[in-house]
Amino acid sequence: MSTARFEQIALVGIGLIGSSIAHAARRAGLADRIVGSARTAATVEKALQLGIVDEGFPTAAEAARGSDLVVLCTPVGICGVAAKEIADAGAFRDGAILTDVGSVKGAIVRDVAPHVPAGVHFVPGHPIAGTEQSGPESGFAELFDNRWCILTPQPGCDAAAVARLKAFWEALGSQVEIMSPDHHDRVLAITSHVPHLIAFNIVNTAGHLERVTDREVIKFSAGGFRDFTRIAASDPIMWRDVFLNNKEAVLEMLQRFSEDLTALQRAIRYDEGDTLHRLFSEARALRRGIIEAGQDTDAPDFGRRIAAPPPGKTCKDKD
Amino acid sequence: MSTARFEQIALVGIGLIGSSIAHAARRAGLADRIVGSARTAATVEKALQLGIVDEGFPTAAEAARGSDLVVLCTPVGICGVAAKEIADAGAFRDGAILTDVGSVKGAIVRDVAPHVPAGVHFVPGHPIAGTEQSGPESGFAELFDNRWCILTPQPGCDAAAVARLKAFWEALGSQVEIMSPDHHDRVLAITSHVPHLIAFNIVNTAGHLERVTDREVIKFSAGGFRDFTRIAASDPIMWRDVFLNNKEAVLEMLQRFSEDLTALQRAIRYDEGDTLHRLFSEARALRRGIIEAGQDTDAPDFGRRIAAPPPGKTCKDKD
Repeated sequence: MSTARFEQIALVGIGLIGSSIAHAARRAGLADRIVGSARTAATVEKALQLGIVDEGFPTAAEAARGSDLVVLCTPVGICGVAAKEIADAGAFRDGAILTDVGSVKGAIVRDVAPHVPAGVHFVPGHPIAGTEQSGPESGFAELFDNRWCILTPQPGCDAAAVARLKAFWEALGSQVEIMSPDHHDRVLAITSHVPHLIAFNIVNTAGHLERVTDREVIKFSAGGFRDFTRIAASDPIMWRDVFLNNKEAVLEMLQRFSEDLTALQRAIRYDEGDTLHRLFSEARALRRGIIEAGQDTDAPDFGRRIAAPPPGKTCKDKD
Repeated sequence: MSTARFEQIALVGIGLIGSSIAHAARRAGLADRIVGSARTAATVEKALQLGIVDEGFPTAAEAARGSDLVVLCTPVGICGVAAKEIADAGAFRDGAILTDVGSVKGAIVRDVAPHVPAGVHFVPGHPIAGTEQSGPESGFAELFDNRWCILTPQPGCDAAAVARLKAFWEALGSQVEIMSPDHHDRVLAITSHVPHLIAFNIVNTAGHLERVTDREVIKFSAGGFRDFTRIAASDPIMWRDVFLNNKEAVLEMLQRFSEDLTALQRAIRYDEGDTLHRLFSEARALRRGIIEAGQDTDAPDFGRRIAAPPPGKTCKDKD
């Protein structure tokens, strides 16, 4: 029996990540039983219908009771509330592992750690995986395959619990890296948070132009814009919480980004072609590194050569 | 016989776009003969080997001689030079159509139009299609399918020539829109040029951090960053020329982008969660429009669910 196996896994929140954990855990046979809770009855119902959870509850405390692994899969801003609710109800099982999947880690430690009772092992985590879709129906078992999961255990945390959670994520398909919450938040600010903010931003800039219509932006988006819109379609509540909870690192990276962009803007204004060429060439090299590391496909255009018109429509119908 | 058919098509420059035009034109039977020229002998040789051109030449003038369609597929900055070279050699065929595929149109009109002799019909064009790859081996026949091609004929241009070029692009798989060079440059500044600049920029910002290594950026790029790197892998020379030749519109859009980004940054600094949520929600709607218009796929993550490690490597080998 793998140390990655649990008797009962509780998913607090059953969206893209929670449901994908369920699918991947079933694929690998990691749980006797998977239960879950969600704020809305409709989500619980959906998760039951889809076979994501064996039992569903309206509260985190009910899901956590009896579970030897509790995974907080809610937006970052309410992880602390959920942990407090479970603790106040006395619902943590002794020896249980408590983890989360939040995109920030410093704020999670700040909000969750004070509520974790003695005998419960809190090991914050973050799978670097996702799609732009949300909700229990968007999850799938392969989401974590060949992706990284970062764990940020606090000093003094039980080593066996960390090892067990590491084995769990590996069994879900991930590779695991251990780092401090502070370093995590800095790395993710540049690899994820600022890219999302920029994507949201340019989509809105485009939407507010007077002399270029939304319809034109949409029609001619294949020139580059559409790549940005994929991540700008991500869940707004999740991302609001990310920015409010990783403020320091995000603001620092944004400042650097803006300085660099100003320098590029200045090179354009003063016709400094050599500067532009040099900076563009440097950017290419990093792309190659990402493909060599297996973190993206090298199929041209991500392999999406032809985006067909929606069913029932021909090209002529489109506008 | 379709009006889209030509006796001899000359491709001046045989990269991604030039070679894709050749493949698509052969697929639709639009040319008796396709010839091409490139600056380097290696490119001409490659294009011959791949069957992209029936005959290859070292100069634009040799390719243009006898051709009833001449397509300038070079970087924007040297289209004027190529047109002058053809004109100086007296190599334009009487009644021929001259077009281009450049990503800016105002500067092309400025640089090319003065060299076009009477009896030759100059109709600037821009297919809104591409991948991050370059060179004659990167082309494929489907590149223009269900994409838009913008033509920007000048007032007084021969209507039959415009209609014929429109029919040609439709036969290549595109839909065609007619607009002024000025409006084109404004639309493309926001849908293509600024997104590329931002992509180049964030990749370089990430590369210059002291406390986050390149290796970490690459490993954890699946959080959003990798979407930006695809377009940052595009040809640096092509893009240098785009920015130098669409300066006014790009600088205006960049200014708007920066103002909007500053407002978002301020909302983060002062914990204005409602503002963030509202702006993020607005961005989502535009994404839906792009998918409904058939300009992108709605497969989660562009359908690239699992980016497999490169051949011969396992996950463990990767770093």
